[in-house]
Amino acid sequence: MQTSCSVVNGRLDATIATNDRGFTLGDGVFETLAVVAGAPRHWHTHLRRLRVGCERLGLPVPAADVLATEVRTAIARASGSRAGDGVLRITLSRGPGGRGYALPVPTEPTRVVTFTPFPAGLPGTDAVAVRTCTLRLAIQPRLAGIKHLGRLEQILARAEWDDDGIAEGLMYDTEGALVEATAANVFLVQEGTLRTPRLDRCGVAGILRSCVLAAADALELPVEVDRLGAADLNAAEEIFLTNSVTGMRRVTCIDGRTGWSQDYWSSRLAAKIADLETVEYRTE
Amino acid sequence: MQTSCSVVNGRLDATIATNDRGFTLGDGVFETLAVVAGAPRHWHTHLRRLRVGCERLGLPVPAADVLATEVRTAIARASGSRAGDGVLRITLSRGPGGRGYALPVPTEPTRVVTFTPFPAGLPGTDAVAVRTCTLRLAIQPRLAGIKHLGRLEQILARAEWDDDGIAEGLMYDTEGALVEATAANVFLVQEGTLRTPRLDRCGVAGILRSCVLAAADALELPVEVDRLGAADLNAAEEIFLTNSVTGMRRVTCIDGRTGWSQDYWSSRLAAKIADLETVEYRTE
Repeated sequence: MQTSCSVVNGRLDATIATNDRGFTLGDGVFETLAVVAGAPRHWHTHLRRLRVGCERLGLPVPAADVLATEVRTAIARASGSRAGDGVLRITLSRGPGGRGYALPVPTEPTRVVTFTPFPAGLPGTDAVAVRTCTLRLAIQPRLAGIKHLGRLEQILARAEWDDDGIAEGLMYDTEGALVEATAANVFLVQEGTLRTPRLDRCGVAGILRSCVLAAADALELPVEVDRLGAADLNAAEEIFLTNSVTGMRRVTCIDGRTGWSQDYWSSRLAAKIADLETVEYRTE
Repeated sequence: MQTSCSVVNGRLDATIATNDRGFTLGDGVFETLAVVAGAPRHWHTHLRRLRVGCERLGLPVPAADVLATEVRTAIARASGSRAGDGVLRITLSRGPGGRGYALPVPTEPTRVVTFTPFPAGLPGTDAVAVRTCTLRLAIQPRLAGIKHLGRLEQILARAEWDDDGIAEGLMYDTEGALVEATAANVFLVQEGTLRTPRLDRCGVAGILRSCVLAAADALELPVEVDRLGAADLNAAEEIFLTNSVTGMRRVTCIDGRTGWSQDYWSSRLAAKIADLETVEYRTE
């Protein structure tokens, strides 16, 4: 049986303090990375998003070499992971704090690095069916794009269905714009252009999303990052989701309707991403 | 020196698991209560808000007698609290969970009860100066009113000033309506009517806010719970803030402007609240 391994501020530990502001106030950011054969995928791009999140929240940016050491320790110490495949989570909180919202002085952030092996390897990237969530994402430009710890909107949206046949839920914002899926970004191809929602008002700008945008540039596929709506989904020839762990998944069914069977660009983009090393992280 | 005491799921403990969804996803709610001479103030009203929060998030509601026992333990065990005055925090999270937003099955919630003594007694309730925060609250009706763990908006707003002379920051929503202060509700008295923002789109419906509304009813002071704006503040004769720990505080200065020197109704409401036992909890 596989078990996770956590490293907390450099020490093997499975606990944090009850007064950690990550727990008491959601005061922090995190990253979730796929690990293949012991190597975290898109490591530098994840570090860039982590830095963007820290800057947005006024958190000290952890040193990359310190994090890398903690990641190696967590992967090496997790049991049942002979293949070295699994999921890595890096959580950075503002650390212990007193009562109230004012920033603690001094700030002593908490880093938690957890590796969970996938003995069966990473999930596949098949075509999936999705639904539309009724919960609408709130518009908060100050938190848009980053992966902060306050994820109740996604939790409530994900709780809207309990059908294993539905892989994801599409989410719109309170003004009716398509934003993302609960744990993935969304892309569509329409008349030879790759389109994806702008994430300047809400949503999380995923790492694989940045990879897809870079791959499109490399393939000279025109890109539009824009406000999109349900009509754009209907008009699309291809739709796909991106998530660092589950990869690229084509959407072939939305709310029971089918009609997106092409994979011309999604397959080419997926192949191109495999060739790319570090890509620029795109927040919007 | 005083030290806090935490009780985690009934056991004296100062830690929670790194995979607790309160830490990883902000998946939970909390209450902050004033404790006077060993007795939590407005206990039943706090329990009602906790229940409303649990219902909104689909969390099991903790048994009141279990919580009461944990609260007594935390207060009794905290050192340096001979007077029994202090602040109690009750945090309820969805407990340990795997990766992803889907609800864990089974759900084993985490209860953390922490008492922090105030050797010098609870803070006073003087007149205060406030400022207007630039951060606007996002509109999310599904989370409005409850005290959930995702408090980054309040943290970013509170980080906007570092002047001990400013007690609080007033917050507006993204559509320009006055909502609350970073850690308090806001009331104004205008031409013989008590007015306070509706909290159906964002904001936290405080316990002392419910007490003020009940006290106004008892005093036959007309009440309007409505959308308010900056013009209403300017037109007010009295403005005050409410917070369970800091109590009722009159606002006499906003962004350097003074002019709210009356305390006719705020003093009467404060006196009336002292007479009230349990009041109905008002979410909007």
